[in-house]
Amino acid sequence: MRPVVDLSVYLVLDPDLCGGAQGMIDTTRAAVQNGATCVQLRAPQWKKRELVECGRALKALLVGTGVPLIINDHADVCLAVNAEGLHVGQDDLSPEDARAIIGSDRVLGLSVSDMDELQNVNASLVDHLGIGPIFSTATKKDAGSALGIEGFAALARLKPCPVVAIGSVKTPIVADLMHAGADGVAVVSAICGQPDPAAATRQLANAVANARL
Amino acid sequence: MRPVVDLSVYLVLDPDLCGGAQGMIDTTRAAVQNGATCVQLRAPQWKKRELVECGRALKALLVGTGVPLIINDHADVCLAVNAEGLHVGQDDLSPEDARAIIGSDRVLGLSVSDMDELQNVNASLVDHLGIGPIFSTATKKDAGSALGIEGFAALARLKPCPVVAIGSVKTPIVADLMHAGADGVAVVSAICGQPDPAAATRQLANAVANARL
Repeated sequence: MRPVVDLSVYLVLDPDLCGGAQGMIDTTRAAVQNGATCVQLRAPQWKKRELVECGRALKALLVGTGVPLIINDHADVCLAVNAEGLHVGQDDLSPEDARAIIGSDRVLGLSVSDMDELQNVNASLVDHLGIGPIFSTATKKDAGSALGIEGFAALARLKPCPVVAIGSVKTPIVADLMHAGADGVAVVSAICGQPDPAAATRQLANAVANARL
Repeated sequence: MRPVVDLSVYLVLDPDLCGGAQGMIDTTRAAVQNGATCVQLRAPQWKKRELVECGRALKALLVGTGVPLIINDHADVCLAVNAEGLHVGQDDLSPEDARAIIGSDRVLGLSVSDMDELQNVNASLVDHLGIGPIFSTATKKDAGSALGIEGFAALARLKPCPVVAIGSVKTPIVADLMHAGADGVAVVSAICGQPDPAAATRQLANAVANARL
């Protein structure tokens, strides 16, 4: 049975913004204590030995919190770490290949940036989507062109499964994104590298909760 | 049961030297028809969708030849392609993690560049070693310092499993390497990007065979 993932405040870790592995662990602890509901380990510039080591430390930190750990791109690292899920982009493993490797008990997320990609989603393989970038972003250089809130809404309206909005999402636009169909917001720099990641997470979590009222 | 791998002439593909995926396929065909006994797909700069696609094409090409396909670094791609083996470096998945993912029916190779790494090899997990670089090399930027033939011999003397010599290996030094304990030679630029990859492979295969006389 796959865990049900609460996408409300989905933290995507960035080793550069966080200041390395220990910074990612510290950021995760602060975020999870203050309302982050999902954590993704993403470090495309890292070799796998370091990814596995950091992933295991994150997994140990998250035990008992109910917050799942999602590994970006690398299904093998997901297995080695025994993470709850994998996230793939359009140039990574196909959802078919990814699902065959991670099995039926892990969640699988997929990045989607336009209508063609959305209409190609096989919701029997994929559990949730990251739709973006909402605005152009410095933390993911291969992301597509910015959707804006209108563009996000057009895609989210047709969502075949839950979606998070991603790409330069900050607290002031959370309500608009939630009203446009987001099931949560995924953030990198809105938490990683912030002077007070705990407070930054609380603000995001409050904004998501308030938008649901 | 793991396939027994003939390491005699081990081709490591390089997409830049070969000129992309089709170039790697053409190079592989020419090499295998002329004595290459093992083929590794290595393209660290590629995303996985492209790696899987190319890996499947190589696998289709190699069916019935008895030449195994080894995937560099990515155990998930190895599974997706159903390749015969995986090759990991010291910063990649650990042999323990790699073996747990690929199972007992695939071969596992490991890169070793010094005595410490050699003495840490667990030969119950690892099937063969790539020892190098013999000389400094432009095709693998994270390789250690050059061993020379003497340095290679010092390591090969203590080998716990079969070894290939790698790192700027060219035909004129094949005999020395074989006499120093190599079970074969692994090459990138000695085949990839050569004006006549077929002839280049034949020369290497002849040099290996002659060294065994």
